[in-house]
Amino acid sequence: MDKTFIFGHKNPDTDSICSAMALANLRSKLGEEVEATRLGELNKETEYAFKTFNIKAPRLLEKVEPGTNVIMVDHNEFSQSVDGIEDANIKMLVDHHKISNFKTKEPVFMHSEPVGCTGTILYKLYNQNNVDIDKESASLMLSAIASDTLLFKSPTCTPDDIKAARELEKIAGVNLEEYGMNLLKAGTNLDDVSEKDLINMDAKEFNIKGKKVVIAQVNTVDINDVMKRQEGIEAEINKAIKDNNLDLFLFAATDIINGNSELLALGNSADAIEKTYKLENHRAFAEGLVSRKKQFLPLVENNL
Amino acid sequence: MDKTFIFGHKNPDTDSICSAMALANLRSKLGEEVEATRLGELNKETEYAFKTFNIKAPRLLEKVEPGTNVIMVDHNEFSQSVDGIEDANIKMLVDHHKISNFKTKEPVFMHSEPVGCTGTILYKLYNQNNVDIDKESASLMLSAIASDTLLFKSPTCTPDDIKAARELEKIAGVNLEEYGMNLLKAGTNLDDVSEKDLINMDAKEFNIKGKKVVIAQVNTVDINDVMKRQEGIEAEINKAIKDNNLDLFLFAATDIINGNSELLALGNSADAIEKTYKLENHRAFAEGLVSRKKQFLPLVENNL
Repeated sequence: MDKTFIFGHKNPDTDSICSAMALANLRSKLGEEVEATRLGELNKETEYAFKTFNIKAPRLLEKVEPGTNVIMVDHNEFSQSVDGIEDANIKMLVDHHKISNFKTKEPVFMHSEPVGCTGTILYKLYNQNNVDIDKESASLMLSAIASDTLLFKSPTCTPDDIKAARELEKIAGVNLEEYGMNLLKAGTNLDDVSEKDLINMDAKEFNIKGKKVVIAQVNTVDINDVMKRQEGIEAEINKAIKDNNLDLFLFAATDIINGNSELLALGNSADAIEKTYKLENHRAFAEGLVSRKKQFLPLVENNL
Repeated sequence: MDKTFIFGHKNPDTDSICSAMALANLRSKLGEEVEATRLGELNKETEYAFKTFNIKAPRLLEKVEPGTNVIMVDHNEFSQSVDGIEDANIKMLVDHHKISNFKTKEPVFMHSEPVGCTGTILYKLYNQNNVDIDKESASLMLSAIASDTLLFKSPTCTPDDIKAARELEKIAGVNLEEYGMNLLKAGTNLDDVSEKDLINMDAKEFNIKGKKVVIAQVNTVDINDVMKRQEGIEAEINKAIKDNNLDLFLFAATDIINGNSELLALGNSADAIEKTYKLENHRAFAEGLVSRKKQFLPLVENNL
């Protein structure tokens, strides 16, 4: 049988990279020929995780040929997936996002749960398959959970995420609080990131009520540190809107210490955000909002 | 929290009814308020199972109001689901069919596997949740597996189905070969079934390449016993085609003893079947074909 490629979404975050690798380790141990891949560059947070645990990054996958065997993790929307996904042979899906017009040609193994992180579901799959979790896989899943749940502070975090992380912490041999805070902080060092990379580093595209919407997010320990670059960020966002015919680009700078976000909304449909937050200079402070999935996306869906 | 309704597809077969009930038993034991329901009348096979194990049939669910909490089993296509499904609050899905444009408003628990029967996945869910399987639930899941896999003879049957059935057989306290054959035969006693009910008793609607297609199946121990009623069956099929603007109605009478089917194809797109089987008097003998999911549906998809 042909090798199966495993990958998370484009503009990969730590969960997308680490869950693809943890699942590849699991499937390999079950005797399958698989390869974890990535659909974009590693961000600084993931780089910190790989450096800490001495893990080698997976190969970049540009596109897939028709009929290629693939496994999707941490996403199910084709618009966020590899080029060519429509004609690929999807064999499995492991995800924690809402399902958006997902379809397969054959019955497949599909495991989705409303938990904070794909890594948490993978932890369960290791247990369900009675496969021991090696140290590297534990480090991968732990990093994913610390990242996606903002160290349990995100509203997406569930008791299952905490339980998995506490078990994985022991196998990985690190102190979760200390490692997790360093991991999150590593992702917030944006000084040498260009404005173009800033708006693309964790951006996801959605089709909402016929509108093309991008919601991008960066984590920071100081919102002003990001927003002092507003002019350059806006220029890149306006370029992206023009190049990709977007109706709305919502950029969120999220303060991971205090759990708030500054929103920057541009595009013809930006006024939709005003139903909830008054925009001044295209910006609004969103107290208590940190989660794209649970907060920013519903905000856009309800107002658009 | 409001009660959650659990149901399989319209024109329910034994798997749709029994899996809804077995899952309701599981969720109840986990402390949730749920009710198994059905989206149509019981067929004779399911009636035999309920009589054998002294089980009471679930309530008929006609439609659901917007926001109703629901769990779907044994189907994921909205066209096969309860009226109002588009605006319901889907909380969970357990299925073994290919995924067709399924979507949810929120992240949900979704467990789909390429096995022969939803009952087999439920058996795994009981184990994953460390819940003991009571005799009634075992009887329900066992009946579903015997039915959907045609007692392991269907090409959809997997080693997981056989393993689950052998474990459930012990708890249910029956001989699987004897009970299963009686179950399948009970479903084939079609003498007092009207032609209208015959074409509707296990019919599923699909949207394939923009065409409206119904594939209906009846099990029998003697194909001639069904096909001697061809004239009346064709009249009802033609009425269904007219009333529902169907492009193709494929009716299969499946010989469960020998594992073959007689096909009857009507509608403007019926000639598509001729790419594989020469139709005479609208009919063709399809040697070795017994499975809608694995054989009839791909036949239509490939030829349409």
